[in-house]
Amino acid sequence: MKPLGPIPDGYHAIGGQLAIGAQSARDLVDAAGGTPLFVYSRAHIDRRVAALRAAMPGQLAIHYAIKANPFPPLLAHMATLVDGFDIASGGELAIVRDAGVDLADVSFAGPGKRDRELEAAVLSGITLNCESENEAQRALAIGDRVGRAPRIAVRVNPDFELKGSGMKMGGGARQFGVDAERVPALAKAIIAGGADWQGLHIFAGSQNLDAEAIAETQGKVLDLADSLARAIGAGPLPKLNIGGGLGIPYFAGDVPVDIGIVGDRLGERFADLPDSLAQTTMAMELGRYLVGEAGVYLCEVIDRKISHGEVFLITDGGLHHQLAASGNFGTVVRRNYPVAVANRFDAEPVETANVVGCLCTPLDRLADKAFLPAARIGDLIAVFCAGAYGATASPMMFLGQGAAREILV
Amino acid sequence: MKPLGPIPDGYHAIGGQLAIGAQSARDLVDAAGGTPLFVYSRAHIDRRVAALRAAMPGQLAIHYAIKANPFPPLLAHMATLVDGFDIASGGELAIVRDAGVDLADVSFAGPGKRDRELEAAVLSGITLNCESENEAQRALAIGDRVGRAPRIAVRVNPDFELKGSGMKMGGGARQFGVDAERVPALAKAIIAGGADWQGLHIFAGSQNLDAEAIAETQGKVLDLADSLARAIGAGPLPKLNIGGGLGIPYFAGDVPVDIGIVGDRLGERFADLPDSLAQTTMAMELGRYLVGEAGVYLCEVIDRKISHGEVFLITDGGLHHQLAASGNFGTVVRRNYPVAVANRFDAEPVETANVVGCLCTPLDRLADKAFLPAARIGDLIAVFCAGAYGATASPMMFLGQGAAREILV
Repeated sequence: MKPLGPIPDGYHAIGGQLAIGAQSARDLVDAAGGTPLFVYSRAHIDRRVAALRAAMPGQLAIHYAIKANPFPPLLAHMATLVDGFDIASGGELAIVRDAGVDLADVSFAGPGKRDRELEAAVLSGITLNCESENEAQRALAIGDRVGRAPRIAVRVNPDFELKGSGMKMGGGARQFGVDAERVPALAKAIIAGGADWQGLHIFAGSQNLDAEAIAETQGKVLDLADSLARAIGAGPLPKLNIGGGLGIPYFAGDVPVDIGIVGDRLGERFADLPDSLAQTTMAMELGRYLVGEAGVYLCEVIDRKISHGEVFLITDGGLHHQLAASGNFGTVVRRNYPVAVANRFDAEPVETANVVGCLCTPLDRLADKAFLPAARIGDLIAVFCAGAYGATASPMMFLGQGAAREILV
Repeated sequence: MKPLGPIPDGYHAIGGQLAIGAQSARDLVDAAGGTPLFVYSRAHIDRRVAALRAAMPGQLAIHYAIKANPFPPLLAHMATLVDGFDIASGGELAIVRDAGVDLADVSFAGPGKRDRELEAAVLSGITLNCESENEAQRALAIGDRVGRAPRIAVRVNPDFELKGSGMKMGGGARQFGVDAERVPALAKAIIAGGADWQGLHIFAGSQNLDAEAIAETQGKVLDLADSLARAIGAGPLPKLNIGGGLGIPYFAGDVPVDIGIVGDRLGERFADLPDSLAQTTMAMELGRYLVGEAGVYLCEVIDRKISHGEVFLITDGGLHHQLAASGNFGTVVRRNYPVAVANRFDAEPVETANVVGCLCTPLDRLADKAFLPAARIGDLIAVFCAGAYGATASPMMFLGQGAAREILV
């Protein structure tokens, strides 16, 4: 038996079934037209953003990184909650434009921006977080050509990392950003080149549950921003994107990050900012933390098999929608996400079962030796923590399966 | 410095550039309209199939498992070369139907077949490789309902594995097939149920380079098929899909599988088959082995960055098209695929560089500390062994990037 990850707060049983808001899993599947289905909860997102705002200093802007989940109805809802959006491609620019987001509140980071993406960014008035000297030069040249001053910030590759992060984005040689010591010269060139100077973006890691480590790193980000702003010498920094880093619990033993600690420590720093940062618009960029636990992936048990004494629950879902949950996306050791039998949500677990997908590959495993209620054919399996890096971060075309349904409730 | 995988046979330089057939990489990109681009070579596939036919016993049918690469023009070409197709979903059934493949030569394996997929299969006359007793019962019931005898084979979960395989498909508890000891009873029930009995499908592993291990496993497959056929007692087995298993070299030190050994050993067995198998149509099911080395992924260098003394070549490609090459698909230790600077294909390597994709994640790495010619912005990077499990086995929607171009030359 292998442990399952912790089911996030906010889910309960109605008539024995997992409910998302006031609707049971079965009703949601019927409403959506079938499985596999991603269900995203507005109420869950609302609570998360409200709790975050309550914990953080009032002047901290909250940005949503749409790479976590670009489902258009979810984006439209996020637009009512957050202060800005962060995108990572020209494709994502099209998505936020179509969602009716105010493009003045959008910034674009990503190490391989093509000229056509830079041009679309300049014309739309979004902020480019430039990742290299070359990219800044190209953006300035495009600005000259189209007759519009590009809005440019510099993404910094910091000399420190966010310790214990699922993804390290700083500390050593990276494809992201410009090494800190080269940032002042680049920023001066950008300002001299006639750009609308936006400031700095400093991202040191993501998917972290250690509030002390996050707070310590945010302190370093502020120190680095201060020293860079003074070296740039163009007055107070306009904006500072301090990155994200807040993770969510996926696996047994994971404990939610204590945002009270993060907020308090950030508040102490904000109360005593140096002149270089005293008028700076501060933003935190979050993706997974805002929406990850607000999503549930529902799939149906197509077959129940016994092989060599082990139970296999074979579903119509799989790694083509849930690559990370299958343990195949940047994972060294496979561990179980939180998984449940959705229509027997309050039933006692009685057997150890493997929950697998429908793909013809042994990689397609949604839960390994999980202790679950006895599931039958036609039952619904729920995989939690499916609100971020699910549908679009999985190979949906693999084995001809195609996309899952998605609904926002 | 970390070694690169071996560049497959059949690639050479024309005017200093990588050529695929008679066309240079740059010409191919221009013809296709840009990068990122998958190029698949008819000539490479033709040579591979011809060599395989020359090595294998004449009576062995060669099947293509389209999951490896379902690009329609490639499928249409494969239809001129192979004796049958293997599919893994209703989506893949639609693809082979659209490609004009003779559906009498198609078989459908996969552990989570939905009723609508079973019905489509029964109506189209393809062979169902049933993965469980329940699935067989559902297929028979659907056959009764639609008035057509389903063509059914049984997929066996063998008690042995193909040692050293990239993917183990047998030996122990698996979601695939029916445990061998339950197969005779199931086959009898299928025959008694009025199905058009097709025989057995026994698959023990894939992506294996050890000819002796493959030959030994094929011997076990024949022994198991013989004992199962006798236990079923319905006369000689109609068909036997002996699985695949032939791998391709991806990494430094990998050596191509010696198909001469595999063919010779299979020929010896075929010369001395028991009565139960003497009239059996034998088929080998291959995907990656037929098309993997016939594909090259081309992407363009968008930026060339130095970070902490390391060179980063930032391309417009990435793991959204090449998940396996990035080391993020069922891989524990990341190793480099064969990678080259396509427009400097015969230039001497002079520097160590990291080749990365355009995605804003540190997972997006196409070559790690590779010794390469000095690449400039605008150069083309080639990732070899891109003909299988590339475009459709990668999260193409991730970060809004979308699909790569594909051409068959």
